[in-house]
Amino acid sequence: MAEKFVSERNLRFLLYEVFDAESLSRYPYFNQYDRNMFDMVLKAAIELADGILWPVFQDMDRNPPELVDDQVKVHPSMSAIMQEFGQGGWIGATIPEDKGGEQLPHLIADTCQFIFMAANYSSSVYAGLCAGAADLIKIFGSKNLFNTYVPKLLSGHWQGTMALTEPEAGSSLSDIITSAEPTNEGYYKILGQKIFISAGDHDAVENVIHLMLAKIKGAPPGVKGISLFVVPKMRIDENGKLISNDVVTSGIFHKLGYKGCPIAQLNMGDKDNCRGYLVGEPHKGLRYMFKMMNEARIGVGMGATAMATAAYYSSLKYAKIRKQGREIADNDPARLQVPIIEHADVKRMLLFQRAIIEGSISLLMQCCKYIDMQKVSKGAEKEKYNVLLEILTPVAKTYPSEMGILSISQGLQCFGGSGYCEDYPLEQYYRDARIHPIHEGTTGIHGIDLLGRKVIMHNGKAFELYLMEVWEAIEAAKNVSMLKPYAQQLSVSLEKLKQITSQLVSISQDKGPEYFLADSTLYLEFFSIIAVAWQWLLQSLFIQKALANKQSEREMQFYQGKFFTFRYFFGYELPKIEGLARRLMESDGLTIEMKSSLFND
Amino acid sequence: MAEKFVSERNLRFLLYEVFDAESLSRYPYFNQYDRNMFDMVLKAAIELADGILWPVFQDMDRNPPELVDDQVKVHPSMSAIMQEFGQGGWIGATIPEDKGGEQLPHLIADTCQFIFMAANYSSSVYAGLCAGAADLIKIFGSKNLFNTYVPKLLSGHWQGTMALTEPEAGSSLSDIITSAEPTNEGYYKILGQKIFISAGDHDAVENVIHLMLAKIKGAPPGVKGISLFVVPKMRIDENGKLISNDVVTSGIFHKLGYKGCPIAQLNMGDKDNCRGYLVGEPHKGLRYMFKMMNEARIGVGMGATAMATAAYYSSLKYAKIRKQGREIADNDPARLQVPIIEHADVKRMLLFQRAIIEGSISLLMQCCKYIDMQKVSKGAEKEKYNVLLEILTPVAKTYPSEMGILSISQGLQCFGGSGYCEDYPLEQYYRDARIHPIHEGTTGIHGIDLLGRKVIMHNGKAFELYLMEVWEAIEAAKNVSMLKPYAQQLSVSLEKLKQITSQLVSISQDKGPEYFLADSTLYLEFFSIIAVAWQWLLQSLFIQKALANKQSEREMQFYQGKFFTFRYFFGYELPKIEGLARRLMESDGLTIEMKSSLFND
Repeated sequence: MAEKFVSERNLRFLLYEVFDAESLSRYPYFNQYDRNMFDMVLKAAIELADGILWPVFQDMDRNPPELVDDQVKVHPSMSAIMQEFGQGGWIGATIPEDKGGEQLPHLIADTCQFIFMAANYSSSVYAGLCAGAADLIKIFGSKNLFNTYVPKLLSGHWQGTMALTEPEAGSSLSDIITSAEPTNEGYYKILGQKIFISAGDHDAVENVIHLMLAKIKGAPPGVKGISLFVVPKMRIDENGKLISNDVVTSGIFHKLGYKGCPIAQLNMGDKDNCRGYLVGEPHKGLRYMFKMMNEARIGVGMGATAMATAAYYSSLKYAKIRKQGREIADNDPARLQVPIIEHADVKRMLLFQRAIIEGSISLLMQCCKYIDMQKVSKGAEKEKYNVLLEILTPVAKTYPSEMGILSISQGLQCFGGSGYCEDYPLEQYYRDARIHPIHEGTTGIHGIDLLGRKVIMHNGKAFELYLMEVWEAIEAAKNVSMLKPYAQQLSVSLEKLKQITSQLVSISQDKGPEYFLADSTLYLEFFSIIAVAWQWLLQSLFIQKALANKQSEREMQFYQGKFFTFRYFFGYELPKIEGLARRLMESDGLTIEMKSSLFND
Repeated sequence: MAEKFVSERNLRFLLYEVFDAESLSRYPYFNQYDRNMFDMVLKAAIELADGILWPVFQDMDRNPPELVDDQVKVHPSMSAIMQEFGQGGWIGATIPEDKGGEQLPHLIADTCQFIFMAANYSSSVYAGLCAGAADLIKIFGSKNLFNTYVPKLLSGHWQGTMALTEPEAGSSLSDIITSAEPTNEGYYKILGQKIFISAGDHDAVENVIHLMLAKIKGAPPGVKGISLFVVPKMRIDENGKLISNDVVTSGIFHKLGYKGCPIAQLNMGDKDNCRGYLVGEPHKGLRYMFKMMNEARIGVGMGATAMATAAYYSSLKYAKIRKQGREIADNDPARLQVPIIEHADVKRMLLFQRAIIEGSISLLMQCCKYIDMQKVSKGAEKEKYNVLLEILTPVAKTYPSEMGILSISQGLQCFGGSGYCEDYPLEQYYRDARIHPIHEGTTGIHGIDLLGRKVIMHNGKAFELYLMEVWEAIEAAKNVSMLKPYAQQLSVSLEKLKQITSQLVSISQDKGPEYFLADSTLYLEFFSIIAVAWQWLLQSLFIQKALANKQSEREMQFYQGKFFTFRYFFGYELPKIEGLARRLMESDGLTIEMKSSLFND
């Protein structure tokens, strides 16, 4: 790589040591792949990221999309990038071969996505949306819809989108008012407006295919009346030609960062000529959409981790080069200045970043492994992976999003004043990353999702299964002498999690849902820190295993560096649960009793 | 105010109830002022902020300074703004009357600065630098320097700067290489380069006066060889005309935010014709500069708090207007949506912001009161205020800087996707505020300053005096029944602070300074949370006093809202010391033992 934005070594450690990607090849669904082929795929991803995506990372920020005559113009490189994503099979990486895809495990395909995101997040989003839209049509759509749209989406010739948000319906999707009026011609007439639609319109593709939520006239109120439609920008007329489908881009949003990807405002049906094609059955649209949303949420976690990873390597490089100050114990000004990486506080800032990014990517790969295992298993086992994914999705989305911002901020801080200037990429990462706690469900929404839905669903079954996963790692670590104290620390933390969870559930019974959920954002943070500690403990098992063997010096440094980072997480990050636990145990309803009128003055 | 960016009510609460500004009028130095006059000054500040500064807040960001033919061009409104600051007496607000100033207490003058900063931080910086430069020349410079420069600085016709940083000397000021060669003509010949000089050059003034650190040829190495010079951009020739002084602006920095103020790179003496005028004695420059730096550090804390305050009121306004979702307990989609301020998690985000900003401004006003009391007192009492200021300066600079970023981030989050867009000011506050943990000493530097210098100086005297101040508030709160549990909580926290401090000092003796200071940034955070809790406890005494009396409904709401915010700080923020305490008690030298080579891969 011309500029290091990910650690291949760490990705291989996670893929092959911690998550045993090779074992997936033993399942028929994945048995066309072996370790060599996985390596080739990863190599190809790095080449694409390094050769095509990274070089325009900054330029796409400096030359953001423009709306010219109802048409969004994006960076000129996007057209070639879409072709690369399509031709290389990256868009359809996890789609079955018989549907036109590559049938790769998510563990591998999402690692490639992670590499693309680290090189150039904005550009990666276009492809991710195509993949999600294709997958949704594949699963829930008719054969006709599949044939019309999926090949074009997978080849990168047409753009896919998730068209959910409206001016009055963001977090509250039940309030969408875009309407769909049935006709006798096999389509619905769509009327409405959507906002904040990522890649909602642009000139790097021939067409844009919106997976759009709308309400069929006469549908029940709320989420139970939401249906899913394919609404193309250009529809195919009787002669097979693309003609306008009355979807007009009425604006684009000028954003703090993440500027390479246009976020559009769309008007449908202003000329009474917008056609939508129902996906699956009426009124089940939100349930279908959650399939795409859950993967998009993992994708946001990946993107947040990827940006923070690229920022980390940028700050690490600077910290090794930049000379400033001397050892505290011997700061004779006659001596030469030392690289700032020699200062304990700079090492702390680097370790913080590394602890966050390597913990987060581990958690995300854990989720990918669950997705893959769910695909190849059946019955109770399939259900187990399914609910583990459900409970971990808000965590895997939010922890990297929130902590990624702090991680990048520490990376920026390593640069001092230079970090605040455009000469280095840190200021861009800082702007880009702020989107993640917002899109695909805000942090507050995920807090409510975790505590109010996932933890208590199926009588707490997901929570129980999750605890067993963590216990398994703790039990294994107890058998390794170097890891015993850490296993013990996590065990105590897990007990706290159980205790606080049951106390909150009892509050739910005593005082109702509002008190139960008042501090759910804090509960999510508390839960997440423990989940990432679990992932670090899991990693530490493989670190210790490797350190017990003879290694080259470079390999020893890799594992030792990881072990310090693991210790950092347990020494500096895991203790943060103490303050959160204290607050969560109180639950005095402060934020409920504080009436809005008391915010005056 | 057309748009609310500060709470006048809260400022009056702090000024007149908590810090008893009127009492200052009893001292001869301030006795030309009374409460009425203070009120008039505040009113004038708000009018200036509201009428002149706020309207160009966004436009100054959108049209940042440009370097055209060696001349920095700033926003066209800056020229009139400088005149306003000068003519209104704002630059010389705290300078004695016999030196051309207004002789106002810092408590009042800095509150006005705070109002300016909240309206338009970038523009306020120009004036602050003029004031600092004038003050420095007044205290340490000759009569001739005073007469030549101070009136022009106070009137806003000439710009003042702090010219410290060089390419190889940022945090490590001992490494500056800008040189000063003595002549027999009463001046020194200056040769060197400075970077990151705020307001270092611009066209809204006739001249720029740099207060510049340089080393006289043959000076001892390190900080002991640093002298302070006045280096004007234009010097006065024999005929009293301004001519070039060979100070060339070789570049300006393009920054993430805080764009209204130019940050320049300066070359001095390229044509061997740059003259500098020594301030005070040789080799004492850094000591002199600390006078300006310490006030600038309080100013950074003020600026950080001010931005976060403006961001808070912006998010509060939005939260009251924006409708989304329904009550958790009754979310029937047939009901109307409610303003988001009705959601507990949104109230939490608002309370978080308010707890940070109202706690921070209180701490900063406490520092201002110490400055004022130091001016009017003598002997041991003067020394007491002096050391209290010394120990609190790193806290008052850093806590608002670090927490202000998080506060603004929560404000942005209240807006959802709109917060990420340029339609609202939050994204600008988010960019602007990131400078504060960097300029005037990074957070890491202040951690070392607090633990490695201030806490242990004079055998821990400053620390002892600080503890007594906090104890005093605790004792008073113990006598108010509603406050007892909070007094108890802070008392336990303070014991922890003492315990950890003495443990760290013993580490210093056992293991040396590197281990002692390894986690000094965490110590600063730990110390700061307790300091702000102290300020909240102090406020709570006056809140309870007011609530015990009959008040109008609006006044009741004000005090009740403040009491909830106080409870929020003790319920949600103060517990954060638990995790920090745990880490600080460990001090295993992790960041020292992690060698830089282990960061490879």
